Amino acid sequence: MPIKSRIRSIPDYPKKGIMFRDITTLIKDPVGFRLVIDHLTQHYLEAGMDFDVIVGIEARGFIIGGALSYTLGKGFVPVRKPGKLPADVVSQEYELEYGSDKIEIHTDALVEGQRVLLVDDLLATGGTALAAAALVEKVGGIVAEMAFIVNLPDVGGERKLLEKGYNVYSLTDFEGD
Amino acid sequence: MPIKSRIRSIPDYPKKGIMFRDITTLIKDPVGFRLVIDHLTQHYLEAGMDFDVIVGIEARGFIIGGALSYTLGKGFVPVRKPGKLPADVVSQEYELEYGSDKIEIHTDALVEGQRVLLVDDLLATGGTALAAAALVEKVGGIVAEMAFIVNLPDVGGERKLLEKGYNVYSLTDFEGD
Repeated sequence: MPIKSRIRSIPDYPKKGIMFRDITTLIKDPVGFRLVIDHLTQHYLEAGMDFDVIVGIEARGFIIGGALSYTLGKGFVPVRKPGKLPADVVSQEYELEYGSDKIEIHTDALVEGQRVLLVDDLLATGGTALAAAALVEKVGGIVAEMAFIVNLPDVGGERKLLEKGYNVYSLTDFEGD
Repeated sequence: MPIKSRIRSIPDYPKKGIMFRDITTLIKDPVGFRLVIDHLTQHYLEAGMDFDVIVGIEARGFIIGGALSYTLGKGFVPVRKPGKLPADVVSQEYELEYGSDKIEIHTDALVEGQRVLLVDDLLATGGTALAAAALVEKVGGIVAEMAFIVNLPDVGGERKLLEKGYNVYSLTDFEGD
């Protein structure tokens, strides 16, 4: 399919045994980029889903989320790495395989009750998406759905997010190598 | 003006004496975000400028650059912090007030002779923009223009970029406090 075939697979990145799915080859191609954004835009127009704002996860989620904010006529709110947002923030830690990481959102990023489409490029363990959803909820938002370009079903993130009651939509799955 | 009035000014960030211009308040507003992208889109359509691809600078340049890639029908190429791109990269160091920083681009990001619109949210010293332009040129691209939302003319980056022969376009200037 025209989206999947434009994604580059890089073995042993970021470490041995991981097959990294690289969307840079997809989005540097104007046809590939348009296919991604048009597909997601049509999906959300047809679904008639009620949401107010797009929250993009740093950094690749900014590229997709920025374009989608435009096509769907929504505002864009960034979830960022620690220390990158200039005003008051709420933080959320999440577990990595070794150690932990942290992401932040502006305390005043959302209005109480605003419905959010959470956007990132890739769904693997779901750890970052869950942390971002927690941030949205801490500042009063409601996660209407989470959208990804690539889902890695073998890693189990999608199952985890669904079990926690989140709606998940992804453009393409990569299984195994 | 409706873009400028939506930008929040935060004193003493990231350090004492700096007045930070925060675009998150502009882009979380759907009208603000649309004004920014429509303005830039119309500018580039009317200018009839010949370019092939948009290069966005991590991370806020991804939000604006992603949306603009869609509206102008161009591919998107990210310039990123070290270690973030999965394939072979070219690096460029640049000076900060204290010490130095580094950004990277994929070696195969551009085709020889491709013309590039470089996009970031803010032009201050111009150091990052110059480093990003050097990366574009190292991988065979030509910088057609550099676009920013906010220009801080007092800091001198715009003058430096113009002196080096680059075209610069920005939506709004902030002078002094």
